[in-house]
Amino acid sequence: MTQHTVGSFLFDYLHRQGVGHVFGIPGDFALPTFRWMQQSKLDIITMTHEPSVGFAADAYARIHGLGVACVTYCVGGLNMLNSVACAYAEKSPLLVITGGPSPVDRKKDLLMHHKVRTFDTQQRIYDEVTCASTVLLDPQTAASEIMRVIHAIKTHSRPGYIEVPFDVVDMPIGHIPPEPTTIKPLSDAENLEAMLEDAVATMNAAKQPVIIADIELHRHGLTPLALSIAEKFNIPMVSTLLSKSIISETHPLYMGVYSGPLSESKVQKYVEESDCHLMLGAYITDVWFAFMGTSERLNRKRAMVCTTEKMQIGYRTYDDVVLEEFMQRLLTSPIKPRSAPSIPHTPEKPEPLSAAEKSEPITLNHFFRILGLHIGPNDTITCDTGDALFGAIGLRTQTSNNFLSDAYYLSMGFAVPAAIGACAAQPKNRVFAIVGDGAFQMTGIELSTAVKFGMKPIVFVINNDGYGTQRFILDGPFNEILRWNYTKLTELFGGGISHRVTTGTEMEAALKAAIASDQMNLIEVVVPRDDCSPSLKRVGEELGKLRDKDKRAG
Amino acid sequence: MTQHTVGSFLFDYLHRQGVGHVFGIPGDFALPTFRWMQQSKLDIITMTHEPSVGFAADAYARIHGLGVACVTYCVGGLNMLNSVACAYAEKSPLLVITGGPSPVDRKKDLLMHHKVRTFDTQQRIYDEVTCASTVLLDPQTAASEIMRVIHAIKTHSRPGYIEVPFDVVDMPIGHIPPEPTTIKPLSDAENLEAMLEDAVATMNAAKQPVIIADIELHRHGLTPLALSIAEKFNIPMVSTLLSKSIISETHPLYMGVYSGPLSESKVQKYVEESDCHLMLGAYITDVWFAFMGTSERLNRKRAMVCTTEKMQIGYRTYDDVVLEEFMQRLLTSPIKPRSAPSIPHTPEKPEPLSAAEKSEPITLNHFFRILGLHIGPNDTITCDTGDALFGAIGLRTQTSNNFLSDAYYLSMGFAVPAAIGACAAQPKNRVFAIVGDGAFQMTGIELSTAVKFGMKPIVFVINNDGYGTQRFILDGPFNEILRWNYTKLTELFGGGISHRVTTGTEMEAALKAAIASDQMNLIEVVVPRDDCSPSLKRVGEELGKLRDKDKRAG
Repeated sequence: MTQHTVGSFLFDYLHRQGVGHVFGIPGDFALPTFRWMQQSKLDIITMTHEPSVGFAADAYARIHGLGVACVTYCVGGLNMLNSVACAYAEKSPLLVITGGPSPVDRKKDLLMHHKVRTFDTQQRIYDEVTCASTVLLDPQTAASEIMRVIHAIKTHSRPGYIEVPFDVVDMPIGHIPPEPTTIKPLSDAENLEAMLEDAVATMNAAKQPVIIADIELHRHGLTPLALSIAEKFNIPMVSTLLSKSIISETHPLYMGVYSGPLSESKVQKYVEESDCHLMLGAYITDVWFAFMGTSERLNRKRAMVCTTEKMQIGYRTYDDVVLEEFMQRLLTSPIKPRSAPSIPHTPEKPEPLSAAEKSEPITLNHFFRILGLHIGPNDTITCDTGDALFGAIGLRTQTSNNFLSDAYYLSMGFAVPAAIGACAAQPKNRVFAIVGDGAFQMTGIELSTAVKFGMKPIVFVINNDGYGTQRFILDGPFNEILRWNYTKLTELFGGGISHRVTTGTEMEAALKAAIASDQMNLIEVVVPRDDCSPSLKRVGEELGKLRDKDKRAG
Repeated sequence: MTQHTVGSFLFDYLHRQGVGHVFGIPGDFALPTFRWMQQSKLDIITMTHEPSVGFAADAYARIHGLGVACVTYCVGGLNMLNSVACAYAEKSPLLVITGGPSPVDRKKDLLMHHKVRTFDTQQRIYDEVTCASTVLLDPQTAASEIMRVIHAIKTHSRPGYIEVPFDVVDMPIGHIPPEPTTIKPLSDAENLEAMLEDAVATMNAAKQPVIIADIELHRHGLTPLALSIAEKFNIPMVSTLLSKSIISETHPLYMGVYSGPLSESKVQKYVEESDCHLMLGAYITDVWFAFMGTSERLNRKRAMVCTTEKMQIGYRTYDDVVLEEFMQRLLTSPIKPRSAPSIPHTPEKPEPLSAAEKSEPITLNHFFRILGLHIGPNDTITCDTGDALFGAIGLRTQTSNNFLSDAYYLSMGFAVPAAIGACAAQPKNRVFAIVGDGAFQMTGIELSTAVKFGMKPIVFVINNDGYGTQRFILDGPFNEILRWNYTKLTELFGGGISHRVTTGTEMEAALKAAIASDQMNLIEVVVPRDDCSPSLKRVGEELGKLRDKDKRAG
């Protein structure tokens, strides 16, 4: 076997970690790295703009357990920062590889193109949004540094950063150490026993316990354990919007997505009437829990918040208790099994539209009903921020882990690049992207990459003529956008098929044609400007009630 | 007069600083700030994607002396980081305003949407690319903080950062202090005398001195002083690509753009044969000076490097000598005036294409010749990275300060958003943008904003079917891009006029039509895939010579 260079080792190692694709855009400092990538077993998906590269690799990471974005120094890396911040916030195992200047030049006080303040500016910035970083200044230590960063990414499920100087990448790799061994952290034994004792007592005292299965379960491979706990003791489950679909939405113990007044009413009622919330892998976020006052909604006294960072039951916290160990012990603990609970099952299988409904101007509600009737078990959905996401609470998916959104970080522009990532990760799946017109104007142009690589996502642009969700909060001329002729995009690209639909009938026809076609499909769904999803409508009604209450009080 | 809020004070203060426009994209944390902006005397240019917002505001800042970009917390701010890094690297006085969470929430350990790691993550990141930053947590100190940051931006000509919590923006502003006074720094008197003495001796000993007038002159308002020095002593001048047009290219002492082998041969010869380089406001960058060895090209012994950060003559440096003071004293120093030197004047007025040339497939060289014949004194040019920029060395402009590029930082995607900024800053000027196809695929979609606001830039997309300059360095499939039908963009926008030209005849016709029209014009210029500018060709020949030399040596 020939001696590895730093570059060939890096991509060979990534391949052995199960990575099949790298998303990227080259630049001069990164070109030699791209050459090694080209010679490796990895496929390169070159895209048009770095913000999209990050989102695509993030989506791939969520599906595969490791995703890779490769860009050039500063002008590429800093342009991708927001997407990597999103991956950090939502715990996606994303590796950022960037080209960089030579160690020789870094010793000089030189104004090198792409340099911002010092040669370390990019790494210092990335240290804010990654769990580990390195600059491969020395080929002797490069292998161990590469392995250290990738191991940290997998352990913490957060992004990591490897900067590869354009000359070092061609040098023979030095010492290759053995694979880092994962030492699973152990709980403090007595704290664990105390927490278990309190957990069992709390659960057994509860009349209506609920498991809130959140995103950390997915990121740390703990969903099966959570399912075992639910099934053994017959405890119903909800997800959050961030974890939607990590539990199959057809599971008999699954009730739906809980997120305060955005939830379907039956789910909201059941969860808020529950006297014990077992929140596993929870992200206690403002939008989904604290929105208009968590404390009033969820009984904090009996909430069990179990995450990789904090363990808490009611007002008591438990140091050094490991989530996985706690869950394993909970499974064999003397929790009394319930009889099969009578629970809601949402989203319900949607009703087909009546002939009258089909002929009306299409609404977001009708859009989701029609889409829900056509989603199969091998379909993946990427969903952008805004009312597309709120509306998706009512969209019934058919299998687990097939709904991707940045529902915590809520950066607009996620869905189309994420669809590119999902197409690469699951080439046999059909990928649907749902995106509002404002978010689409940010990164929708990345459909160019779908055409370039023969990917076939079906993309719905929900056109409500502007930043609809923001209008809901505070309106002004700044929420207006230019009304594009979205269907012209496929002519711009010279590939793909466009549709524009204004009624349910047209939507059904377009969706059927898209599913039957073997190309990328863009479907512009024109909804009324003041239309909103049933979820957002519920929030509006709740806000109205609050205002009335305030008025009476004031 | 009614009491100012934090928001109304901020925009009123900016208006009094001469700002007329703010570039931005709203988001929930920034909506109340946008409402105050809407009620102010400023015009809001809402765009489609944050990376473009930063470039547009940067261009506006370069023209106006202060530019403002307003975006939302993290998902907006971090998405604009690369553009602000560009402004930092190239010393553009750009103010970033971002929405932010409430001081009340910042005290809690809360997972707030858009938050990455801590509430301070965005500010810490921005501290790497700004000269001053603040979070307006307290309305009592808000006015002095706003004034401090804006004063720092103007003093250092670097970006600054103001984060405005969404609730604080509505609160009554507290104490408004008097305007900060600018205390001009003074030189160490003896060091200054010593440097002047050495400078005069060096200049007077030189046979062929040259002034290299670089970008800091423009940023700190010192160009007139540099011109006075040149004119008083009859010393010829060159600019760099970064400072192209800060000296009018028709000035009798102006020789052209110097940047090593990229320069026109006559200019390169004159500068490299000079025995004294007075480098005023210099950026000693790798691409323009160090490219293939500065030390061999410029006589370091007699180079006078004079910047706001460092003063150096030959091997000696002078602490605490202020650039402006030094230049003022130089003007009245006993430098002996030269007789009018015999110097090259480039770029020369271009030759009209012959009939035969016009019918050939158009090249980059022909493109610049035709454009050069049509540029007038009220035209502004924005130019993107790549061979568009190298080729622009040969483009003769008609007045000063009308050529904008990010020629040091070299981020692709600058020219189209910068054209939006220039259109807002100089509504009476005609704005030309020159951009390669790769860079255009990054941010060209921002022409949507030109259509939305009735701006009329003329945009040339130089289509050489991929990342041409990178092919020149290291080729591979990663330099391929999808071949768009660029002329379809105006149909997508429902506004503007498109042209596609493949010969000089077509280019002339399209350019004339564009100049006569009152709409945005997009002209796709199809050049051969292997075409390159005369500048890049010169570099290629020089590289070839170096390789031959290496071979003979090796």
